[in-house]
Amino acid sequence: MRLLEDRIRKDGKIKGGDVLRVDGFLNHMIDVRFVAELGAEFHRLFADCRVNKILTIESSGIGVACLTAQFFDCPVVFAKKSKTSNMDGDSYHAQIASYTHGNVNNVVVSKEYLGEGDRVLIIDDFLARGNALEGLIRIVSMSGAELVGAGIVIEKAYQDGGEKIRARGVRVESLARIASMSEEDGIVFCD
Amino acid sequence: MRLLEDRIRKDGKIKGGDVLRVDGFLNHMIDVRFVAELGAEFHRLFADCRVNKILTIESSGIGVACLTAQFFDCPVVFAKKSKTSNMDGDSYHAQIASYTHGNVNNVVVSKEYLGEGDRVLIIDDFLARGNALEGLIRIVSMSGAELVGAGIVIEKAYQDGGEKIRARGVRVESLARIASMSEEDGIVFCD
Repeated sequence: MRLLEDRIRKDGKIKGGDVLRVDGFLNHMIDVRFVAELGAEFHRLFADCRVNKILTIESSGIGVACLTAQFFDCPVVFAKKSKTSNMDGDSYHAQIASYTHGNVNNVVVSKEYLGEGDRVLIIDDFLARGNALEGLIRIVSMSGAELVGAGIVIEKAYQDGGEKIRARGVRVESLARIASMSEEDGIVFCD
Repeated sequence: MRLLEDRIRKDGKIKGGDVLRVDGFLNHMIDVRFVAELGAEFHRLFADCRVNKILTIESSGIGVACLTAQFFDCPVVFAKKSKTSNMDGDSYHAQIASYTHGNVNNVVVSKEYLGEGDRVLIIDDFLARGNALEGLIRIVSMSGAELVGAGIVIEKAYQDGGEKIRARGVRVESLARIASMSEEDGIVFCD
């Protein structure tokens, strides 16, 4: 998506080689009008999929998920990060390793809000190694809901998360795919 | 706001006396169409205040803040919770005690995204003892921005946070104000 690539070139900040900060419009300040345009694009891509629920993960997925959900006229469920691995019977649980933060998060979704009959689109801000997305896919699978696919704002395509997940037959649509980036040479997007 | 009071009566769950869970439409699953109606109401209340930035705090404020910001056509900045009290010079910091979680969060807002010339509306889901709101007000004050007021979805008016903050001259508009609640007698809203 050209609009997004231009914005990343303009406002994205590469830190220490592998960190791309987009705090100026997505991850700390949210340019709501702009992010709604990303939502419209996700809707164009998944318009015929009868999506009735959007699943994301706190915190940075929530804004883009809400602004996308308006186009589908459906609710958002956000997986919550939990310090404790609380294995109660009321929730689906997954463990997600965070490369950025160097820890493991237990994420939970209440069984009340996801289940059979749901047609789920996962929305998230970043896809790199794919740990968060794999965790959300496991939760959808446990719930008995149907996974329509995943809409990602920025994919680090030089890491293998996206390829691994697509290879399993999951439709993953990323609005910007980064082929390479470095502080010296900037960002190169995939064609 | 009658629409919200009805929804809280229908879907809110009182737990152990003082906890009101609204996971079904606000805090875990977000009923996006409904929450956008709350956003429209915040806009009606603060329409003439020349708001150019909405400030909230992760995670549960983000959805309502984004859906509200669309009416003001302005960006959202969300304060981030940080494990470390990282006193770098690039951010505004506040400590916020969480009664619900029994801990203290350091919250940070980058100086890049809030400052003089901004006219800020704080949006949050709950107001009870007022710790989160007071922390956000401190951050606005540090930044040199102008605080227009605070829009709260649900205020526990039987606790003193709202009164304390109003007494200092801050305009606080809560869409539902709870006078009392208990598992036995349910919820009584203020007139």
